[in-house]
Amino acid sequence: MRKGLQTPLIIVNFKTYLEATGKKAVELAKKAEKASLETKVSIGIAPQFADIAEITGAVEIPVFAQHIDPVKPGSYTGHVLAQSIKEAGAEGTLINHSEKQLKLSDINDTIGIARENGLLSVVCANDPNASVAVAALKPDVMAVEPPELIGTGIPVSKAKPEVVTGTVKLVRRINRDVIILCGAGITRGDDVAAALELGTQGVLVASGIVKAKNPYRVLREFADATKR
Amino acid sequence: MRKGLQTPLIIVNFKTYLEATGKKAVELAKKAEKASLETKVSIGIAPQFADIAEITGAVEIPVFAQHIDPVKPGSYTGHVLAQSIKEAGAEGTLINHSEKQLKLSDINDTIGIARENGLLSVVCANDPNASVAVAALKPDVMAVEPPELIGTGIPVSKAKPEVVTGTVKLVRRINRDVIILCGAGITRGDDVAAALELGTQGVLVASGIVKAKNPYRVLREFADATKR
Amino acid sequence: MRKGLQTPLIIVNFKTYLEATGKKAVELAKKAEKASLETKVSIGIAPQFADIAEITGAVEIPVFAQHIDPVKPGSYTGHVLAQSIKEAGAEGTLINHSEKQLKLSDINDTIGIARENGLLSVVCANDPNASVAVAALKPDVMAVEPPELIGTGIPVSKAKPEVVTGTVKLVRRINRDVIILCGAGITRGDDVAAALELGTQGVLVASGIVKAKNPYRVLREFADATKR
Amino acid sequence: MRKGLQTPLIIVNFKTYLEATGKKAVELAKKAEKASLETKVSIGIAPQFADIAEITGAVEIPVFAQHIDPVKPGSYTGHVLAQSIKEAGAEGTLINHSEKQLKLSDINDTIGIARENGLLSVVCANDPNASVAVAALKPDVMAVEPPELIGTGIPVSKAKPEVVTGTVKLVRRINRDVIILCGAGITRGDDVAAALELGTQGVLVASGIVKAKNPYRVLREFADATKR
Repeated sequence: MRKGLQTPLIIVNFKTYLEATGKKAVELAKKAEKASLETKVSIGIAPQFADIAEITGAVEIPVFAQHIDPVKPGSYTGHVLAQSIKEAGAEGTLINHSEKQLKLSDINDTIGIARENGLLSVVCANDPNASVAVAALKPDVMAVEPPELIGTGIPVSKAKPEVVTGTVKLVRRINRDVIILCGAGITRGDDVAAALELGTQGVLVASGIVKAKNPYRVLREFADATKR
Repeated sequence: MRKGLQTPLIIVNFKTYLEATGKKAVELAKKAEKASLETKVSIGIAPQFADIAEITGAVEIPVFAQHIDPVKPGSYTGHVLAQSIKEAGAEGTLINHSEKQLKLSDINDTIGIARENGLLSVVCANDPNASVAVAALKPDVMAVEPPELIGTGIPVSKAKPEVVTGTVKLVRRINRDVIILCGAGITRGDDVAAALELGTQGVLVASGIVKAKNPYRVLREFADATKR
Repeated sequence: MRKGLQTPLIIVNFKTYLEATGKKAVELAKKAEKASLETKVSIGIAPQFADIAEITGAVEIPVFAQHIDPVKPGSYTGHVLAQSIKEAGAEGTLINHSEKQLKLSDINDTIGIARENGLLSVVCANDPNASVAVAALKPDVMAVEPPELIGTGIPVSKAKPEVVTGTVKLVRRINRDVIILCGAGITRGDDVAAALELGTQGVLVASGIVKAKNPYRVLREFADATKR
Repeated sequence: MRKGLQTPLIIVNFKTYLEATGKKAVELAKKAEKASLETKVSIGIAPQFADIAEITGAVEIPVFAQHIDPVKPGSYTGHVLAQSIKEAGAEGTLINHSEKQLKLSDINDTIGIARENGLLSVVCANDPNASVAVAALKPDVMAVEPPELIGTGIPVSKAKPEVVTGTVKLVRRINRDVIILCGAGITRGDDVAAALELGTQGVLVASGIVKAKNPYRVLREFADATKR
């Protein structure tokens, strides 16, 4: 069985927030591990490249890169090599986050390179059609971000639920195996519970945790909410 | 009914070949029209942006842009606006050609913009998985280019046919309507006939026509082959 | 002598504005030609790719593409070939507009390709240091857009003049020949006059003309202002 | 005085070579440190992002990132933040390597962001004109790669020396302070000596060291050659 793929699954994207850079990234990782150990809920984290090795040395929860490039070892200065991320201890990688979008063929190639190197792929999509397209590429995990929810401050629990259920339904028609996360507007335990009720198997969050006054408390709330 | 969507369909991509630039592009367009009129087979052409208006004034066959950008009217210097292509007389546009690849979300947006402006979308994919992904985005036409066929000089009629039939089957599971073209390795009438036998509804060709000593003769051969 | 390089020089960028697309682009081009003929001031225009041929057939003033790609004839679907633009009648091209920015080496290559094809290069830069960098690449014309002026609504005549004079001075230290245009905040004749007083040899404008109620009247005002 | 800016300067780019990934990257870094300590010649290294922290904890020689993105802390998933690299212990970063080229304005912005974060900028240019352009952006260090030397296997000591001396002369006309490295074709001590004789202050090397059977020996040869 693939380590880290236990569901429900919460992945915290550290982005390039200063609150989650360097030493602070390690501290935040430890809080995520504490919440995971106490609740037995799977919590993964996606720190910046330079922090991966330090963090995988400090915690036992799944660590994801935020991106890898679709390249093999060689002359690719400045690129992110799957093997490098793997050796640093990562278990997987985000791919095609809305802030680091890829060409379609590069998403496809990157999923393949991740798999060849034993890395889990977590591919983002920002639209129902795009979600089906991503599902067709057979990643391990996908994060759907219904446009109705992104940046509006409207939590999934209050937005039109049919957008999420509709996307899940479309995805499941062509891919039964992919783990589906809900990726926008998650700030409270209620949002996490709602995401699961609507058919997803977890959430991808960022500022809701990283920018919280008490990230540990919010992570506990999220993890507890998966048990309702 | 959508003009230009009669199948079998042959689309000739003029690329940026000098043999298909300016006056020579107009001459080649006329040859394509002649072959189409004589055979009653639908032949479309995709010239360079600057040649579209002249060509749509000279011939009656469907003309496609080679690319449009996912932008609306406004401050987008150097971009290709759907409305501009439409007013120049184009009926559609290629999208995501392997030489002009787009981000997944841009393919999705560009198909939408094409539709809003009454332009047919012809989206390229270079891999079975990517083909299913493209089909999920619901373009009018898609061109699949099995990697076994690209640039190898091996015509589809001699390559492993199961690659093409397999891709068609996968696409049809999620999209019954899209017109599927075969997009690589087409140089002879036999290749066109083989592409149709394997379940596609036409071909996307470039050098096989543009670089031919007698493009009209080859186009006639292609068109005739669709009737076998 | 290079046609179109008479100074002072006014270049109108049509961008992808609907007011300057298709037939409206041709009408606007004629107004620019009328203002140029009446005032004997050099006015160039930069329409969209698909409108170039129609416009060069309708007017005698210099026509520029908004962009070309650094490619040679060949397999470059969706790219803008210098030879295509040239055959459509363009005399030059904008390069590296802030809305279509290029890698440094591509700016360099594109200037070379323009020159090889007898096209004038008009390269944009949005910063004093970047302006010196562009000057080092030896384009025919460059448009400097002091950041103090872009999108602020503050005309050059009221902004700190030392930004413009300083940039001109820096550029002239390494390039005596390049024609320097001022490229932001130009909406009135006073702005044009101020740009010339500060050491530039003309202006690159867009919305100030295209979005004007009476583009011809504003162009006349601009052209007249160059004679103060 | 800026640590690491002692000249002559040798920088070893680890690229994404497996021979310089993870543990092997640390081993190679130690060899570089040994050669530097024994010869008193300044040797810097540019490992992959995920290896920076481990390496800066293991050696005292200057460590450079291979790239940073021109972004500030915030929502930039998958980007490389200057602050992250800095906290991992890097002293600087390569910028615009030919395998990770940037838009002109991004090179400019990235140099500024590096400076604000106390990181040295090492900017690459692959052409005499582009070298002058880069010099205009005032980086701390620049690496010029005369096209005559890239990938030809012809060492700088045998190539036409006037290409290097000409580039250095052009650069010095507008920038007296930038440290100029020679960045291609360096495989032997003779090449290093030749690069210095022609007016550069060091070399940027990659496969010549990383792929060598005995990287330490070659580094010693390079370092010793700077003293001729």
